[in-house]
Amino acid sequence: MDFSKLNGLIPAVIQDAGTHEVLMVGFMNQEALDRTLATGFATFFSRTRNALWMKGETSGNRLKVERILSDCDDDTLLVLVTRLGDGNVCHTGDRTCFSTEVELGPKR
Amino acid sequence: MDFSKLNGLIPAVIQDAGTHEVLMVGFMNQEALDRTLATGFATFFSRTRNALWMKGETSGNRLKVERILSDCDDDTLLVLVTRLGDGNVCHTGDRTCFSTEVELGPKR
Repeated sequence: MDFSKLNGLIPAVIQDAGTHEVLMVGFMNQEALDRTLATGFATFFSRTRNALWMKGETSGNRLKVERILSDCDDDTLLVLVTRLGDGNVCHTGDRTCFSTEVELGPKR
Repeated sequence: MDFSKLNGLIPAVIQDAGTHEVLMVGFMNQEALDRTLATGFATFFSRTRNALWMKGETSGNRLKVERILSDCDDDTLLVLVTRLGDGNVCHTGDRTCFSTEVELGPKR
């Protein structure tokens, strides 16, 4: 993977392996990717906390990795997961982080 | 949207509105988002070319925007699209940019 474009990070799109819903986007550095591959649970690098975090490590809402696909430029990952715990991925308690509709332009 | 975390850019996950397949991830700055909203076609900021580009402007394989969802931190977009032209999104000629399987660890 090419970690050079974003100061050592790559975006990782988290998609529900069953429903295909996009749940969140996190960032991984090499260590987070290694931990994800070794443990089988999605692990990210938190830009705000400047530390690794296994998603759901405290809440129990871990993300079990089923498949990982890399893109054509090797600078982005698509991670297909099974939601564990209560199945809610967002810190707001929602199933997905993508809940806010953006209004499209009037000219369309 | 919060463009401050990645030097003026936010990741935009492009998902097929019909099949829910994740097709690519691009980056948008404020201008690219404004153009996307005004035109109804996904427009990105190319980090390598340092310029705006409407996806498919030359190939015809444009991405018609159906819905846009923002995430809980307002720093990532999920863009639901209809594929136009020959329907292939990746520059390799594939339908999706995510075609390379990453081998999962042996301990799983």
